[in-house]
Amino acid sequence: MNGSLLRPTVYIAALCGLYLSIAMFLPAMFDLYYGHDDWQVFALSGLMVGGFSAAAALATRGPPPVFNKRFGFLLVNVLWLVFSIVGAIPLYLAEYKTTFAQALFESVSGITTTGSTIIVGLDDLPPGILLWRSLLTWLGGIGIVGLGLFILPFLRVGGMSIFKLESSETSNEKPFARLASFTRAFLAVYVLLTISCAVAYDFAGMSRFDALNHAMSTIATAGFSTHDASFGYFKDNTAILVIGTIFLAICSLPFSVIILLAVRGRLETLRDPQIVVFLGYLVAISVAVGVYHHLNNGVELDDALIHAFFNITSILSTGGFSSDDYTLWGPFAVLAAFFATFMGGCSGSTAGGIKAYRFVIIFNVVRAGLAKLIYPNAVHTVRYGNLTVDAETQRGVFLFVSLYLFLWVAGSVAMAALGYDILTSMSGVITALSNVGPGIGPIIGPVGNFSTISDPALYLLSLMMLLGRLEILTVLVLLTPVFWRH
Amino acid sequence: MNGSLLRPTVYIAALCGLYLSIAMFLPAMFDLYYGHDDWQVFALSGLMVGGFSAAAALATRGPPPVFNKRFGFLLVNVLWLVFSIVGAIPLYLAEYKTTFAQALFESVSGITTTGSTIIVGLDDLPPGILLWRSLLTWLGGIGIVGLGLFILPFLRVGGMSIFKLESSETSNEKPFARLASFTRAFLAVYVLLTISCAVAYDFAGMSRFDALNHAMSTIATAGFSTHDASFGYFKDNTAILVIGTIFLAICSLPFSVIILLAVRGRLETLRDPQIVVFLGYLVAISVAVGVYHHLNNGVELDDALIHAFFNITSILSTGGFSSDDYTLWGPFAVLAAFFATFMGGCSGSTAGGIKAYRFVIIFNVVRAGLAKLIYPNAVHTVRYGNLTVDAETQRGVFLFVSLYLFLWVAGSVAMAALGYDILTSMSGVITALSNVGPGIGPIIGPVGNFSTISDPALYLLSLMMLLGRLEILTVLVLLTPVFWRH
Repeated sequence: MNGSLLRPTVYIAALCGLYLSIAMFLPAMFDLYYGHDDWQVFALSGLMVGGFSAAAALATRGPPPVFNKRFGFLLVNVLWLVFSIVGAIPLYLAEYKTTFAQALFESVSGITTTGSTIIVGLDDLPPGILLWRSLLTWLGGIGIVGLGLFILPFLRVGGMSIFKLESSETSNEKPFARLASFTRAFLAVYVLLTISCAVAYDFAGMSRFDALNHAMSTIATAGFSTHDASFGYFKDNTAILVIGTIFLAICSLPFSVIILLAVRGRLETLRDPQIVVFLGYLVAISVAVGVYHHLNNGVELDDALIHAFFNITSILSTGGFSSDDYTLWGPFAVLAAFFATFMGGCSGSTAGGIKAYRFVIIFNVVRAGLAKLIYPNAVHTVRYGNLTVDAETQRGVFLFVSLYLFLWVAGSVAMAALGYDILTSMSGVITALSNVGPGIGPIIGPVGNFSTISDPALYLLSLMMLLGRLEILTVLVLLTPVFWRH
Repeated sequence: MNGSLLRPTVYIAALCGLYLSIAMFLPAMFDLYYGHDDWQVFALSGLMVGGFSAAAALATRGPPPVFNKRFGFLLVNVLWLVFSIVGAIPLYLAEYKTTFAQALFESVSGITTTGSTIIVGLDDLPPGILLWRSLLTWLGGIGIVGLGLFILPFLRVGGMSIFKLESSETSNEKPFARLASFTRAFLAVYVLLTISCAVAYDFAGMSRFDALNHAMSTIATAGFSTHDASFGYFKDNTAILVIGTIFLAICSLPFSVIILLAVRGRLETLRDPQIVVFLGYLVAISVAVGVYHHLNNGVELDDALIHAFFNITSILSTGGFSSDDYTLWGPFAVLAAFFATFMGGCSGSTAGGIKAYRFVIIFNVVRAGLAKLIYPNAVHTVRYGNLTVDAETQRGVFLFVSLYLFLWVAGSVAMAALGYDILTSMSGVITALSNVGPGIGPIIGPVGNFSTISDPALYLLSLMMLLGRLEILTVLVLLTPVFWRH
């Protein structure tokens, strides 16, 4: 099967490389306009990658392949790998000096919409590299929504098949026609949200450039900022924090729901259990942390709540911006932030993490299981809203969560073996796996960064970001012998 | 149903209270012999509890109840609660001053074979109270093996039904006859193991009293010591550490296997997958930590390995003794110890934790799930050794692990809200839930204790110890409305 799938895989990867190379001319223009030498780096990278991609695409042209699962898995892995490496090229060549591991980490962090950074001195960086980071993350956001809405349900990864059921109810006959119109609607909504967010930030007092970059990073729930202090730079500007909170929360909802809401005004789609649960725990944790901050540190309640909502929403949406060092608010705030890093948003959004719908299914499985202990012969159906969750979907959810926690444990132990303290190890791996951004502890906490992390640890964390972003199974399946057997 | 089950429940609880009151005269005799006033406390407690229990037993005598699941769940909860409270009485009244929360914590820690202590100055304590702690924990060990071998598989808790299948293969017709002979065999093996361990400790250089107490605590994989320094008191005595390691490892194996091995010499029973996996991770983690300790701290390799094996076995067996402050060995050792606290031993042993057989099942479910991603229509059976793991058992395992982790998260956050640092919070709750003993961090680490923990936190941790010991579901099922409905 290798030969037959390799050609179309390389072809699609080359096309994507081509698109990404075109995107490089945008930061080139910015740097040229503002008189920074980095414009040459972006222009050259664009030409190089563009030429190479075009050649590869021409060489591998051919009839469209049969889209089967094997091809799906292979394609997703190759695409994210190509994007990560291509994205790293201008970062590695730019004026700001990095090792290749650092450039790759920054690129993976962008593409996976994680938002962790190895750069110190963002405030003084040329605009090109800042814009490139925002572009990577913004494009990564598009990629992940596409993956979550169309590909993962088809591949039945991690209990995602439930959302396949859901969409097939609406229209089963013409999935590809539907896919095309849905993609157009999604892109329109994504661009509109970005523009609205940028305009709102601009009105609230950000500079135009800051507004653009933070909007791209907000809509992708990524966390890249143009300031070392992240949103701490705007920490006295309540309007900016509220705008950020709202857009981060919106972009943690399933884009299918946002589209239905925006295009057809169907409010009842908000009754999706994962949305109720996600907004429920978002409000509960934010209020708890806000009140705790108020009581523990004597901060005014409204101020405490605004910062709690911003930072907790930022973690749960896997945005990973920070407006303050919440790890100084007290142990309850630290632990809430740490555990929130596992949780994540909704499926089909730009958010990562374990995700709310899995918690809904686990909760309902637990409830049915407790009832079954007492009435072993009764039928205890597990439901998700109006849908019945079949045994395979339940297993898929547990499979995913098991692997998620296993990777967290194994990754943390590996980080500790590389010499990092246990808070940096445990929080560094989970923040990468959940594509959040900051960890806890003095090094990678909300006011820290990944600039002092060693190359081997950066490779490890880059792998974790990709594994988390591709919902683990998509990557692991390639490591099973059965995948390569025919 | 309340009325009909209440009478026999109280009757059996009263009988157990009676047995426990008789046990109180043993420490009374020791204290009387050594001239400590505490003998009066134990004698008085024994008389009081004995009289009360006898009266209650007489008042609730009657025909044996139908043993259904409801009764089973109720009984298990009531028994452990009665034991915990009765066990706390002499501790609360003894010369060593404690709050009631502290006495209850110590008693629960004993009964659940956890081994965490709130006492400082163990080395100078009268023998009675030390012996009482050892007795509680030794009896708790008997209780938990009985629960794991006979009751939980019957109640089908947490995927334990697989062991019911296993035993029913051998003999299905006369479960109660089999139960009685099995109980006799178990008690004989348990007593023999305790005596062998005590004799071995004695030969290796412990005082008689130390040998007796540490043997009881070792066989119950509990962790109570007669020294504040735990096995650190014997840290230069390699023989004692090796003996401890071996007996802790043995008592983490299923007692059914130990019995078959001892009574019938059937070596092939050791091929149970959970045994292979448990011994596998025990050796792997111990060697990794030992070599790390050697490389990181320049300790001689043999010394490093002996201490690593002792402390890691102590955690995995949920014994919780310590021979050294392994949290000073470096972050890899700390994280290994922390994650090992979740893992536990085998089912039907005195060990707690998530337990090896659940990891076996999860691993096999994950493997089948990955294969299913590629061949969705093929049948992927999940196996445990030669047995097929049905969907219900799989769900039971995931149910248990989900609740385990949920309790850990909720408990940790509650501890943090009570003001404890995040390492104390996270490790304190998991060490309680897994019935291990020590946590990590400066307060409750391997050289620390629970003496400074506040009463509310002690109640929380006591609840966690009981929940963990009773495999969570056994307790939670009582909180469901469906349990009380008829």
